[in-house]
Amino acid sequence: PGTKLPKVGTTIFTVMSQLAAEHGAVNLGQGFPDFPVPGRLVDALDGAMRGGHNQYAPMTGIPALRNAIATKSERVYGHRPDADAEITVTSGATEAIFNAIHAVVRAGDEVVVLDPCYDCYEPAIDLAGARAVHVPLDPATFAPDWQRVRDAITPRTRMLMINSPHNPSGAMLSARDMATLADILRETGVFLLSDEVYEHIVFDGARHESVLRHPELRERAFVVSSFGKTYHCTGWKVGYCIAPPALSAEFRKVHQYNVFCTFAPAQHAFAAMLDEAPGHYEQLGAFYQAKRDRFRTQLLGTRLQPLPVPGGYFQLVDYSAVSDLDDAAFCRWLTIEKGVAAIPLSPFYETPPQGQRLARLCFAKNEATLDAAIERLAKL
Amino acid sequence: PGTKLPKVGTTIFTVMSQLAAEHGAVNLGQGFPDFPVPGRLVDALDGAMRGGHNQYAPMTGIPALRNAIATKSERVYGHRPDADAEITVTSGATEAIFNAIHAVVRAGDEVVVLDPCYDCYEPAIDLAGARAVHVPLDPATFAPDWQRVRDAITPRTRMLMINSPHNPSGAMLSARDMATLADILRETGVFLLSDEVYEHIVFDGARHESVLRHPELRERAFVVSSFGKTYHCTGWKVGYCIAPPALSAEFRKVHQYNVFCTFAPAQHAFAAMLDEAPGHYEQLGAFYQAKRDRFRTQLLGTRLQPLPVPGGYFQLVDYSAVSDLDDAAFCRWLTIEKGVAAIPLSPFYETPPQGQRLARLCFAKNEATLDAAIERLAKL
Ligand SMILES: CSCCC(=O)C(=O)O
Ligand SMILES: CSCCC(=O)C(=O)O
Repeated sequence: PGTKLPKVGTTIFTVMSQLAAEHGAVNLGQGFPDFPVPGRLVDALDGAMRGGHNQYAPMTGIPALRNAIATKSERVYGHRPDADAEITVTSGATEAIFNAIHAVVRAGDEVVVLDPCYDCYEPAIDLAGARAVHVPLDPATFAPDWQRVRDAITPRTRMLMINSPHNPSGAMLSARDMATLADILRETGVFLLSDEVYEHIVFDGARHESVLRHPELRERAFVVSSFGKTYHCTGWKVGYCIAPPALSAEFRKVHQYNVFCTFAPAQHAFAAMLDEAPGHYEQLGAFYQAKRDRFRTQLLGTRLQPLPVPGGYFQLVDYSAVSDLDDAAFCRWLTIEKGVAAIPLSPFYETPPQGQRLARLCFAKNEATLDAAIERLAKL
Repeated sequence: PGTKLPKVGTTIFTVMSQLAAEHGAVNLGQGFPDFPVPGRLVDALDGAMRGGHNQYAPMTGIPALRNAIATKSERVYGHRPDADAEITVTSGATEAIFNAIHAVVRAGDEVVVLDPCYDCYEPAIDLAGARAVHVPLDPATFAPDWQRVRDAITPRTRMLMINSPHNPSGAMLSARDMATLADILRETGVFLLSDEVYEHIVFDGARHESVLRHPELRERAFVVSSFGKTYHCTGWKVGYCIAPPALSAEFRKVHQYNVFCTFAPAQHAFAAMLDEAPGHYEQLGAFYQAKRDRFRTQLLGTRLQPLPVPGGYFQLVDYSAVSDLDDAAFCRWLTIEKGVAAIPLSPFYETPPQGQRLARLCFAKNEATLDAAIERLAKL
């Protein structure tokens, strides 16, 4: 058949998870926790099924969940989106990103993405008939060079995508970044897509600069998040998009005819969890900070050099003291020969920086898993 | 914002369900059962969550479920698709239809659809930059006029969509239809998308002519089904697509970057259910036939004229003895004034037949629900 997505292969996350399984490697590659979902969430989902919530949910999501998301946004970001007109529940953040792009990006448009970036952005842009324009982040700090972003915007630019805390680096945008971004977009018609799935995994007292905090930005933005990272259930695939009414209306047209609605019992479970146990997401930063700190201390006993991790659940390491291989080859070698699966950074780039020697390790794991990995990494 | 889907409004199913709720009407509109999901399926899903199956499922679906679908296809249709290369689990049939279209339909292509048809087909075609070409089914029997289909195929035709048992009419394609269709497509490069979500709801000993039974057709086809109709759980949103390896490869490129994977615990639950309790889907025809027969007998006591229902869980009724209103106005009136929600047929058409006076009633309901509806309909 004619190939509409000639560049797309199997995602690196699947490739490395399979390789890890084949070789019995400790899997610090694909980002998912290996500890349990909160028990009350499982109980709530079970209760929703047994309570008969098994037929189509409303297309936009059940009102209780949209209200709970609005309340959470108000608590955390000081802004309450309109639950009816501005919040749409989706089958994970990935669907939300796909829908937002398809809602407004037209054939021939350009979408600015900041490299390295998550691998689902560009195929969705391609499928919309548009073109991704890649602007590199600073190779050392993963901060945007806003002048380059400004220069990348043309009359064809329809959307700019940002992601904070950032996958793969954990870098976070600052209040000053957001002000600069508002300045850049002010006189343009460019939409903003803000991928905030790691919003509650932030460290050292830092504040997540959600686009929801910034009135000038949020009026042109699709803010996407998900419960997978916050509630240790990446396989439940419940996410959401917050956008002004006119943008939400376009978003919902795509969602309505893409998946229509999301697994109903989980919506009830998350609504109850957000209302009754906000402590969970409030404690999430501390929970992961303890993991991060322990893991980084352990890494000091290896020849891998850890980079700073302001947020998220990934640790970048510089492996140049260990190997001269490029990152794809190094991660295969590490998985097959050394028994630890990692993710190379090059698939997150259009043009990977020359000579970059970085790999990504996921620390959303039990201590025993991380200990087993460290034992192997110490031998490098 | 620029509107990419200017024709899309809120789907008629949502509109009528809301109207039903507002007016306390018995809701025979949107198609969903009001009886429970099989208990063992709920138990299996609960067991999967507590057993720790809460992280990303494989992008294509868990192997156990793909194998169970292959085994079922072999049992029922005498053809075993390759579970690895040909079956992909999706977040409902709607996502599968969307993906199949986006996998192969390019800007400027044409897609032939047979009217009346389900309302998600055309928006997905529009979003791919293609054009839906509408060929009407016979207004009395809802059978295809194959000569008109043949005439509608041009060098730009990329796909033909069929749906049997048919929503809204329940009409079923025959073995002879399938032979004619194979003949029409033989010398073309046209792909086939076969929506078979009501595959197990067939009556009077009829045989569902799945495209999977027909080697010549299935080599160019995406066959889409779902568990929502078969297991009384329309809100669980687990479906699948069966297609030859080359088509599945393109399908999966879209799926990978659209939703990536589907709610994992339900995949485990359906795998167990298909393997351990095939009796459920085998008995489904008899289960619904009893409902259909009872409901049709009751309708004889009203002034609504029931049309034949070979399959599916919808009963079309001719209301011309009751009202001269067009179908949209009639269904609103029936919901608001008479307390029974129904679905008009006109939203299923590009050009509704002049003077058609048909409404769709869903009989996937408990006897008490249907009795309450009949009591009201008897007063018309
Ligand atoms: C959808 S698999 C990828 C999971 C993830 O977010 C990551 O590892 O970056
Ligand atoms: C997705 S809501 C529509 C349900 C349905 O299949 C129908 O009523 O035809």
